[in-house]
Amino acid sequence: MSTHIALVHYPVRNRRDRVVTTSVTNLDIHDIARAVRTYATGSFFVTTPVTQQRALIGDLVEHWVHGEGMAHNPVRARAFERVRVARDVEDASAQIETLDGQPPTWVATGASLGLDESNRIGYEALRRRVLQEGESALLLFGTGWGLTDDFVAACDRGLPAIRAAEGDGYNHLSVRSAVSIVLDRLLGAP
Amino acid sequence: MSTHIALVHYPVRNRRDRVVTTSVTNLDIHDIARAVRTYATGSFFVTTPVTQQRALIGDLVEHWVHGEGMAHNPVRARAFERVRVARDVEDASAQIETLDGQPPTWVATGASLGLDESNRIGYEALRRRVLQEGESALLLFGTGWGLTDDFVAACDRGLPAIRAAEGDGYNHLSVRSAVSIVLDRLLGAP
Repeated sequence: MSTHIALVHYPVRNRRDRVVTTSVTNLDIHDIARAVRTYATGSFFVTTPVTQQRALIGDLVEHWVHGEGMAHNPVRARAFERVRVARDVEDASAQIETLDGQPPTWVATGASLGLDESNRIGYEALRRRVLQEGESALLLFGTGWGLTDDFVAACDRGLPAIRAAEGDGYNHLSVRSAVSIVLDRLLGAP
Repeated sequence: MSTHIALVHYPVRNRRDRVVTTSVTNLDIHDIARAVRTYATGSFFVTTPVTQQRALIGDLVEHWVHGEGMAHNPVRARAFERVRVARDVEDASAQIETLDGQPPTWVATGASLGLDESNRIGYEALRRRVLQEGESALLLFGTGWGLTDDFVAACDRGLPAIRAAEGDGYNHLSVRSAVSIVLDRLLGAP
């Protein structure tokens, strides 16, 4: 039915490869909400197990969609209409099942996913599935240094890392850039 | 020879369509430097007529490339190696001519460029010119609400607005997202 996004704050890796919970940042939400709205994506779930942070995001969305933000900048308000809060990816999934009438495929993203052939899916193949075949997909983006291996192993599919035609192996995009590029590959007009 | 980027802080439009100088923001520089490095782009010019802001960017680059930032996060340091400071696009152009041995084509970007047929260029055509034919291109990204019409008219070429396959006309990406997507379209591996 549609493509949804989850920005995952737990479980993710830090620079020392430890499993951590990262903090929600205001700018991630703004930039990703704008990209999600531009590409007519379904919902954008900010997932965190921290109750206070979920409350904070709820306040932020309320400010933009119904509060003073709406009067100040109606364009930004429209972007925030798609932002939702979830405890974890299971919670986001359940919300999508209510919205779309079917559970989404979990699709992992990252610069260094350990994918085997059986769960790897290309951008073109996924584009066809969501745009033409009506599959619901939930694209998972890790904050910090990315999704943990265990988490990726629990996903249905994984997209290959974004690469440059003439790159030298450096691959350290911000999560904001990565979301924008993946949405363009899957949902952009040629 | 290569593709370069300029992030333009003047002349750009504000929300009321007035011509203004915007402030340089730290996060624009970090996100765009990381994308530029990942896509093996040439240089990333931060252009502003404000002398103090140019000095500040110089300090920031110094901190990351040679200073404490380098020790703290060598990966980020590598991204900052490509960041340069310029007074305006003419200044950036002159620096590119020294680097590449040829002046760059100025390529405007934006969500609502007034382009006529003669200076419009598609993503595929520009990709071929820079990757295969050795053209130097300087991609121009406006901060605020985008490049002014006069400025766009002075450019050699303009890229069509980024659009979604099933969008509803909403097109308000952050400049960080726009740079990432344009680089992927021009320099990404399929």
